[in-house]
Amino acid sequence: MSLLVVGSIALDTIETPFGKREYILGGSASFICLASSYLTSNIRMVGIVGYDFPKEEIDFFQSKGIDTSGIEVSPTLKTFHWYGKYHTDMNSRDSIVTELNAFEKFDPKIPEKFKDSEYICIGNVDPRIQKSVIMQVKNPKVVMMDTMNFWIEGKLNELLDTIKKADILVINDSEVKLLTGENNNISGGKKILELGPEILIIKKGEHGAILMTEKDLFTVPAIPLEKIVDPTGAGDTFAGGLMGWLHRTKDYSFENLKIAVVMGTVLASIAVENYSIDNLRNINKEKINERIDKLHKISNFRPIVLN
Amino acid sequence: MSLLVVGSIALDTIETPFGKREYILGGSASFICLASSYLTSNIRMVGIVGYDFPKEEIDFFQSKGIDTSGIEVSPTLKTFHWYGKYHTDMNSRDSIVTELNAFEKFDPKIPEKFKDSEYICIGNVDPRIQKSVIMQVKNPKVVMMDTMNFWIEGKLNELLDTIKKADILVINDSEVKLLTGENNNISGGKKILELGPEILIIKKGEHGAILMTEKDLFTVPAIPLEKIVDPTGAGDTFAGGLMGWLHRTKDYSFENLKIAVVMGTVLASIAVENYSIDNLRNINKEKINERIDKLHKISNFRPIVLN
Repeated sequence: MSLLVVGSIALDTIETPFGKREYILGGSASFICLASSYLTSNIRMVGIVGYDFPKEEIDFFQSKGIDTSGIEVSPTLKTFHWYGKYHTDMNSRDSIVTELNAFEKFDPKIPEKFKDSEYICIGNVDPRIQKSVIMQVKNPKVVMMDTMNFWIEGKLNELLDTIKKADILVINDSEVKLLTGENNNISGGKKILELGPEILIIKKGEHGAILMTEKDLFTVPAIPLEKIVDPTGAGDTFAGGLMGWLHRTKDYSFENLKIAVVMGTVLASIAVENYSIDNLRNINKEKINERIDKLHKISNFRPIVLN
Repeated sequence: MSLLVVGSIALDTIETPFGKREYILGGSASFICLASSYLTSNIRMVGIVGYDFPKEEIDFFQSKGIDTSGIEVSPTLKTFHWYGKYHTDMNSRDSIVTELNAFEKFDPKIPEKFKDSEYICIGNVDPRIQKSVIMQVKNPKVVMMDTMNFWIEGKLNELLDTIKKADILVINDSEVKLLTGENNNISGGKKILELGPEILIIKKGEHGAILMTEKDLFTVPAIPLEKIVDPTGAGDTFAGGLMGWLHRTKDYSFENLKIAVVMGTVLASIAVENYSIDNLRNINKEKINERIDKLHKISNFRPIVLN
């Protein structure tokens, strides 16, 4: 079994109340691949970078067992550069600069040897590209995709067409409203489940996430942190942890879907405590288990019956 | 043991996307008393109403075993009337009319026979009044209080003086920021715990609540509901359920504090599915247990260790 990850690979400039870092590794594929690499193997990465992309970062992905042969390098264009500035509360941010560069031409040709991938995780890119990826893979078993307001507002038909083909959709709560017109996550979520996916994850940032299927529901809080250094990539890290766990366990019971969401939450909580993917460079199992335990303690309570 | 509840008793006009209801029972003391009446007995209610307040509602409180002899009736003034209009997303509202009427003169003299109360739950009123209530009770064991932005902004010194005397503070997340200057609930919460209370509950509306002590933390989600009819009094219902459970069990272990928060969450979820206190008029144990079970299912996951 193998997990195909398709998304952006970027060099980000990030400004937060804690400081500014320039041209640091970013992009949805980077976060997804690294997060899942702590839970599973046989990860295949597809993306595009520019001629300026540091070779050491490609080496680094490889050191995590990630097959990077699907990364295209543009000989003439620079790497996608995004400059984001977070507000004091870290819940909102402004895009100061968005230079698509090589990413503007991103139209991935899935390498022949990746076409037997059984799991696909596609970051937030143009739904037309997402669909193209799904169509190129021979017989995908589990397809997860992310999206954002930009595509809901600008390419709704293409997005709806692609969502039909997804098994798992990951989306922000504000996007649930935008996509369904429902102010309520639950009724909005039900509408989304009618669009195709069997599994819906609604990300709520500092408030955690909701996992929904037609029959079941699970809520997970974010692990409370006193200092969030850089929330960039938190959602992608979450998705990578989730998909990594499913790829590891091949168990789609709701109880195991819960654990997948827990893994996503745990890895995201580790990632946001540092800039970029820095905290995803080296995580040991003890750290992960410590956070799982913490999450368990803060969200579980003993069964109780009122007499 | 007995539980003294002090707060507003009001006739509310509520407008939501689902309709408008005029002069329906409201006020923090009403919600707190009714919620706690499903979990404990010996509840004593202190408040003020006008000459227009329906006698049947007093009878109704009494039918729930609530001692209403601390309710003062103004012979000349009307009952506190608040007219609130909720926005489409139900998370925000405008105060259209606030007629304090009799409530403007609220300066409760705790009846002699209530002065031995061991538990006190004080709704969101002027901190000067909250302090006066605490001082009138001989030897309170557990004091819970609520507050709001109005007092944080307008009577900060009086509020800080009163908070010192509280064991449990219930507060909204936006008020944590206002009170401490911290954007982060956890660091803000820690600052509040240094102000006096040993137990802090941060209410996050549709995102649930956080229970904090110096050492421990618990998060509870709101029970997902497809239709919220009237969120008025949700926080007071939550406080009533919490305090009712503590008064019933007299167990302040963190595991039992978790259950108290669960009870508050469950009762609030029942209350908001109808206008005013209508759903708190008659709840059976089966309904409560069904919701506890639901909350358990959506927030608990099996322990897991990554190997």
